[in-house]
Amino acid sequence: MAEFDLIEKLLQGAARTRADVVLGPGDDAAVLAVPQGQELVAAVDTMVEGVHFLPGTGGADLGWKILAVNLSDLAAMGATPTWALLTLTLPAADGKFVAELAEGFAALAGRYRLALVGGDTTRGALQLGVTALGLLPRGKRLTRAGARVGDDIFVTGSLGDAAGGLRCLDADDPDASRLLARATDSRERLLARLHRPDPRIEAGHLLRDVASACIDVSDGLLADLMHLCAASGTGARLELARLPRSAALADLFDEEQALELALAGGDDYELCFTASAESAEALQGDLARIGCGVTRIGRMVAGEGLTLIAGDGSERPIRRRGFEHFVP
Amino acid sequence: MAEFDLIEKLLQGAARTRADVVLGPGDDAAVLAVPQGQELVAAVDTMVEGVHFLPGTGGADLGWKILAVNLSDLAAMGATPTWALLTLTLPAADGKFVAELAEGFAALAGRYRLALVGGDTTRGALQLGVTALGLLPRGKRLTRAGARVGDDIFVTGSLGDAAGGLRCLDADDPDASRLLARATDSRERLLARLHRPDPRIEAGHLLRDVASACIDVSDGLLADLMHLCAASGTGARLELARLPRSAALADLFDEEQALELALAGGDDYELCFTASAESAEALQGDLARIGCGVTRIGRMVAGEGLTLIAGDGSERPIRRRGFEHFVP
Repeated sequence: MAEFDLIEKLLQGAARTRADVVLGPGDDAAVLAVPQGQELVAAVDTMVEGVHFLPGTGGADLGWKILAVNLSDLAAMGATPTWALLTLTLPAADGKFVAELAEGFAALAGRYRLALVGGDTTRGALQLGVTALGLLPRGKRLTRAGARVGDDIFVTGSLGDAAGGLRCLDADDPDASRLLARATDSRERLLARLHRPDPRIEAGHLLRDVASACIDVSDGLLADLMHLCAASGTGARLELARLPRSAALADLFDEEQALELALAGGDDYELCFTASAESAEALQGDLARIGCGVTRIGRMVAGEGLTLIAGDGSERPIRRRGFEHFVP
Repeated sequence: MAEFDLIEKLLQGAARTRADVVLGPGDDAAVLAVPQGQELVAAVDTMVEGVHFLPGTGGADLGWKILAVNLSDLAAMGATPTWALLTLTLPAADGKFVAELAEGFAALAGRYRLALVGGDTTRGALQLGVTALGLLPRGKRLTRAGARVGDDIFVTGSLGDAAGGLRCLDADDPDASRLLARATDSRERLLARLHRPDPRIEAGHLLRDVASACIDVSDGLLADLMHLCAASGTGARLELARLPRSAALADLFDEEQALELALAGGDDYELCFTASAESAEALQGDLARIGCGVTRIGRMVAGEGLTLIAGDGSERPIRRRGFEHFVP
């Protein structure tokens, strides 16, 4: 398919050269050189207005986020991002919006020297998609499937911030106007987590030789940890009191709300991984050196599914799994 | 992002294994092995309901076509398709539609032993996207940029059939009901070209060592040949009487209509390529042996843009370039 004015403008704004881009945007397809000894890693994610983001979200935030959510998938595999293809469906040609989108995309792409190598722009309801391509030393992949009974469960950073930010923006939420009115700094921190997630690429690299299984927290910790358990053929005990929550989240929400957001809120893009207690010790120091917090939140057990352990040691039922399309 | 029930069902229906799929669908990303000496080729295209296809188009046709239009981009590079990622945005969970879509996708994927290695399903206005990945011996890429003044211009197969098929379906077209009422066989042939395009993969392979430039005809011959001219820094003279048109097109449209459809109609997915007269001779025999018709339709000339030459040798103005989004 031909490239049109809009996508070309976008690509110019966000493209960068890399020695391994044999042929970049503008032809029928891109041609890319995969170095010997490396495997190709590929992920695709879509964001639809009104489903994954609120109408009125700024172009720069969207351009950053559609790349970030895909890089987070590469991070969970331990991969290094190299190239991306971008699809953009727009209700009308809006040069300002596209320029902002390109700027946000380029800001994150630049951090990893990622090259935008192709794309497609079409007319329709607002939607963005990225296919992220990356590289991984042969045989070094992290997957969801390797957790063993007895492994500890860890999560990077803090949970629930993005979902808390979304709550601040939700016009139907009776608390939203209250949240908007106070605690400006905390609110801005949560909104930054919602709009500009930071894919844990460097953490993923450190996990490659240590973690037994890994997944990124995109749909909410409960949903994603359940995926990891299902893939590994194990169960998990999750210690609620240990779930890492930011000061900003605690500032705006009470304990019960914050816990709910940390458990079921999506869009965190932290890494949840499993490792044996011995191997995790050195890892925690390595992660700290790159500024990545990490918290032990539970343990893999025999059986299937999750058991939630409250602070007093009692077990709690699971109320919501997370964000799922088409699932009531 | 997590994989949900719908996409999993879809993937099960359309996935197949290949030895070079290190890790298939179901994890955060796919892991793929690129053989030494091969380069990776990547293209993405989206189809939106009401823009690229009429509401009510069957799932099986859509599943076939969204893959076909992407494989056509790989064909134009001379590449061999190997893997794909599929994004699907659906207004509601519709198991029958998804099953049909998977069936149509798998029918074409099976022809090339292509593996569906990932995807994302979201809720929203109906839209499909595929990222097609393929392989190409290092340095063997076909591009739009290599045409030289004096090269002949060729096109595979016939032009205008898909656009003719679309005319048969266009409720706003005063001719449509007439076309629907007669010439059933010809109409079905045109509709098959519209709904089930055949990417010219094998032809692309034969062109690799012969063609100086190549593009697939997705937006219409005029638009796509202009892209080839712009990339090559040349002009082109197009001999209208030579444009290959099928018997079915001639059966349903008069000469002037058929010419307009062949020039400006999109969705043909034939290959338009340039080659020197000497090198093209053997190629024509090779293409014939794989059942791929090929016609010389003009010549590359100095300058820029297209000149259309009518049957009587007179020059004709260009009325429409083809199908472009956001361009009036």
